[in-house]
Amino acid sequence: MALLYTSLPDRAKVWLPMLEAAGERMIIGEDAVTDPAEVTYLACWQPPADLSRYPNLKAVICVAAGVDHMPPMPEGVVLTRTIASGIETMVRDWVVMATLMLHRQMPVYLEQATTGTWQAQGIYPSHSRCVGIMGMGRIGALASQTLSGLGFDVAGWSRSGTPVDGIDVYGADGLSDFLQRTDLLVCLLPLTDQTRGILNADLFAQLPHGAMLVHAGRGGQLEMDDLQAALDSGRLSSAMLDVTNPEPLPSEHWAWTDPRVIITPHVGSITDYAEGAQHALNVIHALRAGEEVPGLVDQSRGY
Amino acid sequence: MALLYTSLPDRAKVWLPMLEAAGERMIIGEDAVTDPAEVTYLACWQPPADLSRYPNLKAVICVAAGVDHMPPMPEGVVLTRTIASGIETMVRDWVVMATLMLHRQMPVYLEQATTGTWQAQGIYPSHSRCVGIMGMGRIGALASQTLSGLGFDVAGWSRSGTPVDGIDVYGADGLSDFLQRTDLLVCLLPLTDQTRGILNADLFAQLPHGAMLVHAGRGGQLEMDDLQAALDSGRLSSAMLDVTNPEPLPSEHWAWTDPRVIITPHVGSITDYAEGAQHALNVIHALRAGEEVPGLVDQSRGY
Repeated sequence: MALLYTSLPDRAKVWLPMLEAAGERMIIGEDAVTDPAEVTYLACWQPPADLSRYPNLKAVICVAAGVDHMPPMPEGVVLTRTIASGIETMVRDWVVMATLMLHRQMPVYLEQATTGTWQAQGIYPSHSRCVGIMGMGRIGALASQTLSGLGFDVAGWSRSGTPVDGIDVYGADGLSDFLQRTDLLVCLLPLTDQTRGILNADLFAQLPHGAMLVHAGRGGQLEMDDLQAALDSGRLSSAMLDVTNPEPLPSEHWAWTDPRVIITPHVGSITDYAEGAQHALNVIHALRAGEEVPGLVDQSRGY
Repeated sequence: MALLYTSLPDRAKVWLPMLEAAGERMIIGEDAVTDPAEVTYLACWQPPADLSRYPNLKAVICVAAGVDHMPPMPEGVVLTRTIASGIETMVRDWVVMATLMLHRQMPVYLEQATTGTWQAQGIYPSHSRCVGIMGMGRIGALASQTLSGLGFDVAGWSRSGTPVDGIDVYGADGLSDFLQRTDLLVCLLPLTDQTRGILNADLFAQLPHGAMLVHAGRGGQLEMDDLQAALDSGRLSSAMLDVTNPEPLPSEHWAWTDPRVIITPHVGSITDYAEGAQHALNVIHALRAGEEVPGLVDQSRGY
């Protein structure tokens, strides 16, 4: 019985002593596997192409919270994701930063700085800005509370349309109405068959002219060509992206140097290494004891 | 009796109909003055060099909230500043944006974008960051509450050292202790003889190595050469400035293109034009009725 680890070296330095202290064997990298039958747990972000190489595999432990990139698990293998504290607040902080940066015209000021231009742009109070959040899960709910507290006029959109702590939430049928009232669109959706490519020309066309986009969902939701066209037509005035399509974004991609677009390299959150190792230990212990596995993923729902 | 207006043309378009509707005469620009004795009120940001030209002047009405640039008033002339709603929240929003941008390493990501480099930097939870706010007036108090709500470990510094709504505030004597515990320094001080040049090499040397600076006070508080030296030595890792020294910052100034520095052109807040015009009318009516003048400035304190 061993845990095969195929993620970042930095993370391994934290995991290895913790697993050893708990009496668990940890193998770092597939090349170090001498007997595939020994591998009972796999900890990874991107799993190996062929999981069937490990006949006794019981669990794939995703080292982060997002699992939408995971292939279907083989029969008898459970998929768990790391539920770490702080993820929600880290992403919320990124969303608040990005929202304020577009609201306060940072793309224009950054462009002006390249020529040393001291020129004030209009300042609008936050209550004059309608923020719309797609995806009202834990992160969306938290972001909506914080942005509402800063004075923004916030509404949400989710499949159910269930209101969240005083925030109006439009349901699946209300997408068009939701988009029409939204000056600044924030995407926090999980990647599913329904949300893949959802940020496209049709959707942008329903936003008011000059709207802004904050994207902290998944790269696969965004049609980058449609984004460029929407910026060129003035439908969108600016965008801030923490996720791109593809990802990583190739160095020659137009979006890197477009002054209307600000990009961060998928850094909305990071799972604390020690918390992740403890999660792995909790999963191993739960499987051994026949108890409920923490962070269990239902792949039929996609998250 | 007339109000001489010497501020922005855009603002004049809002002021003129409001003053005319109230039966007040408004002269736009000194060139339009035919009889200086007629000028009883002056509305401006930067006052004319020679106020003695107007023998019957009763009040100088600053069209914004900051008055630290104003010369001493002649005998018998009161100085008032516009107290407008929304100023505090606008500046608070800028401070929250700037704090998050430095905290989440936007200077590095913006620099990486110029070469199309997709490279994550470390992400630290907000509770690991000690934010220190110099100046705990209305804006400082509001910013401290919001940043504390985002999880930052916030302390303040003010002359009195009076705690503000649960935030620890160091007093005048505690500056050194305050600086030593501060990873990210936010300056919101008014400009006075005591605060001019306060952001200098001596002060930076008391911050931890790699500290960050958010400056939304006044340009005259910052020694730009000392800032550059502190960045070069690594004492400071990054800075975000809404005010500079001098202001406007000349287009060839080093700070514009230094990747460790982000500049916005004094846009923390703007006074709503209609609110400013109403304030001017309130001042005129109060003077005429012999009542207390709203927004009266005590120049001996500097604010």
